Amino acid sequence: MASNNILYAQSGGVTPVINATACGVIQTVRTNGQGLGRVLAARDGIIGALQEDLIDTTAMSDGEVAALRHTPGGAFGSCRYKLGSVEDNQEEFRRLAEVFRAHDIGYFFYNGGGDSADTALKISRMGDAFGHPVRCIGLPKTIDNDLMVTDTCPGFGSVAKYVAVSITEASLDVKSMASSSTKVFIMEVMGRHAGWIAAAGGLACRKSGDAPQVILFPEIPFDEDAFCKAVDESVKANGYCSVVVSEGLRDSAGKLLADAGTQDAFGHKQLGGVALVLAGIVRENLGYKYHWAVCDYLQRSARHIASKTDVEQAWAVGRGAVELALAGHDGVLAAIRRISADPYRWDIVPVPLSEVANQEKKMPRAFIDPDGFGITDACREYMAPLIQGEDYPPYRDDGLPDYIQPEFELVERKLPEYRV
Amino acid sequence: MASNNILYAQSGGVTPVINATACGVIQTVRTNGQGLGRVLAARDGIIGALQEDLIDTTAMSDGEVAALRHTPGGAFGSCRYKLGSVEDNQEEFRRLAEVFRAHDIGYFFYNGGGDSADTALKISRMGDAFGHPVRCIGLPKTIDNDLMVTDTCPGFGSVAKYVAVSITEASLDVKSMASSSTKVFIMEVMGRHAGWIAAAGGLACRKSGDAPQVILFPEIPFDEDAFCKAVDESVKANGYCSVVVSEGLRDSAGKLLADAGTQDAFGHKQLGGVALVLAGIVRENLGYKYHWAVCDYLQRSARHIASKTDVEQAWAVGRGAVELALAGHDGVLAAIRRISADPYRWDIVPVPLSEVANQEKKMPRAFIDPDGFGITDACREYMAPLIQGEDYPPYRDDGLPDYIQPEFELVERKLPEYRV
Repeated sequence: MASNNILYAQSGGVTPVINATACGVIQTVRTNGQGLGRVLAARDGIIGALQEDLIDTTAMSDGEVAALRHTPGGAFGSCRYKLGSVEDNQEEFRRLAEVFRAHDIGYFFYNGGGDSADTALKISRMGDAFGHPVRCIGLPKTIDNDLMVTDTCPGFGSVAKYVAVSITEASLDVKSMASSSTKVFIMEVMGRHAGWIAAAGGLACRKSGDAPQVILFPEIPFDEDAFCKAVDESVKANGYCSVVVSEGLRDSAGKLLADAGTQDAFGHKQLGGVALVLAGIVRENLGYKYHWAVCDYLQRSARHIASKTDVEQAWAVGRGAVELALAGHDGVLAAIRRISADPYRWDIVPVPLSEVANQEKKMPRAFIDPDGFGITDACREYMAPLIQGEDYPPYRDDGLPDYIQPEFELVERKLPEYRV
Repeated sequence: MASNNILYAQSGGVTPVINATACGVIQTVRTNGQGLGRVLAARDGIIGALQEDLIDTTAMSDGEVAALRHTPGGAFGSCRYKLGSVEDNQEEFRRLAEVFRAHDIGYFFYNGGGDSADTALKISRMGDAFGHPVRCIGLPKTIDNDLMVTDTCPGFGSVAKYVAVSITEASLDVKSMASSSTKVFIMEVMGRHAGWIAAAGGLACRKSGDAPQVILFPEIPFDEDAFCKAVDESVKANGYCSVVVSEGLRDSAGKLLADAGTQDAFGHKQLGGVALVLAGIVRENLGYKYHWAVCDYLQRSARHIASKTDVEQAWAVGRGAVELALAGHDGVLAAIRRISADPYRWDIVPVPLSEVANQEKKMPRAFIDPDGFGITDACREYMAPLIQGEDYPPYRDDGLPDYIQPEFELVERKLPEYRV
């Protein structure tokens, strides 16, 4: 009998909805997986696959699997670990093939971004060489929304919703008190290379003058004078100014602003905190009272304010991966295809991993206002559907979300120990 | 006919639910306000009262008033402006009396914290001296939860819920990836003098080892060695460590850690960012990869994750103030009295403003673990009811909360211009 178990692994930074994708895989196999075996999950991503740290999800109750849909973080663990080229890393790829063979794994589902697509593609291609072919399906996931081809990446819609809701709320706060207190509020969001997340803040702005009045994208080199002018104009016109800034903001020489010499208490260079740098610029040039927030992990784990659309898409790419595997696909991404914008309709289609691997989708310049401080209607049209709908987790009596934190036993090992 | 209009004013830092209190006042007067006149609101708090910048809420539709209940920020504007003593500020108090007389204001409802209670008390006492007595009712509001006598302060429960939910979520994220990536996560919350908000993070911790493993309170002088030891132990035992830190954390000499010499890009001392200081300490002493977040205004405007209990209490102190006014009370706070803890039952009772004015309720030492890094069962018993229940705002089709942003016309002025 051919190997027919699935190995599912989470890769890279986790999201509020990556577990919803795992849920989609497991539920679909349980209800519609004729011909498929067990769904195994690698603990801590590809590291677990290498180390033979495997979890048998058949031990999970249906209730536990269902709870994955509303639980943030990566329930099976994730990692930042990139496999190199097959040529230079024969040992690692050989080990993977051994693990796959030992556990009758015929399908590898890799839930990640562009690097993971590359890894999945390599594994797909190595099969024959290592004597144990596996069908590889990529499942898109990244809050950065920077994968090619797919309409969006599960995870992004929920982060976008968090950012748009948060800047709406904080701006109401600032506006309330601007006449005698804080006039400038700066909110730092993720996005080291692409401004998708920062752009989501622009969804809060429905008419001229609405917050956020200034958005700073990594795609637009920072111009201190223009920034100060824009902030000052907003304070004079609206009484206050709300700023959303991407952590990846760079100056005209391409240097990260967050690297601009900020020192910590020990006199060491402090990474992170572009919000802090901007606050200093506001103080020096404008003298307005300011406040700043850094969302960091809060934004990418905020399952409590997830986008319903995003949760549905995250689940659907899990189901889609199973269906693609059953249909004999290999080396493809379960991509989201936009059928229409309004109403937003989409489906899941296979796209060759080679079109996705190791690439980054930047914000088109046409999505950013000519002045560089806001988003255009084209951007809004693209992005608005992605934050539609709410999908609240259930809450316990104590007022906190009923997230699952399963303790997993590892499948008994069949191979010699291997440590990454 | 005696002056029977109510002047309602918002004071100090706004909250996710201060508008719910305004809603409680206006709705109660509309349905049960026999003998009362109009509800006027001062624009931007007491400054508006002084400047005769008044809003007539009778112009608001019932729908607009209802929407106040789910809209964060201060819809009428707030300010940080403290009236001095009556003796030293005769002109200001005389002006207030003139405004009250000119607009037939017989009741002053001041929605704020300890300073506002002091102001309301002064205005209550000045009446006879200035020839226009007004009945003054304090309506409690402060996310800091530091008012005496009242069981809690509207605003706190929702901030507490935000903090407990956020650290739960971010900790799931960190835990997922700790084997190969970030091991220490630091979340900075508000609370310059009292650790109530930081303590709320402890509600996320249900059993030993749960996040947050370390909470740092302003009440407990920071001990760098003990902190590093606690973080390291958690990383070794749990694989990661989540830290909640109050912005008001101080060293043994009473100095704010956030003032510990952090410099910005210009070499100027940077205020704020104790999370950044702790991150530096983790790096220097432990070498673990870290991330940090600063919640800032996001926490005190996060109406999307408000506590249902808090919203109900905020509304109820508005209703209670009207009822106290009708019953002839003056110089009292509409305080929340705890009748029972489990189930949580409470009512609104009058408490003399003199028992509240200019005082701060610190966290009792018995609410903090002996080691200084967590909360006790006594704290949990007190605080858990305050975050119970969800009270989601309605959402628009575009995926964002349907918050109201009314544009108000000011009531025609009757007095000479006066600028604060």
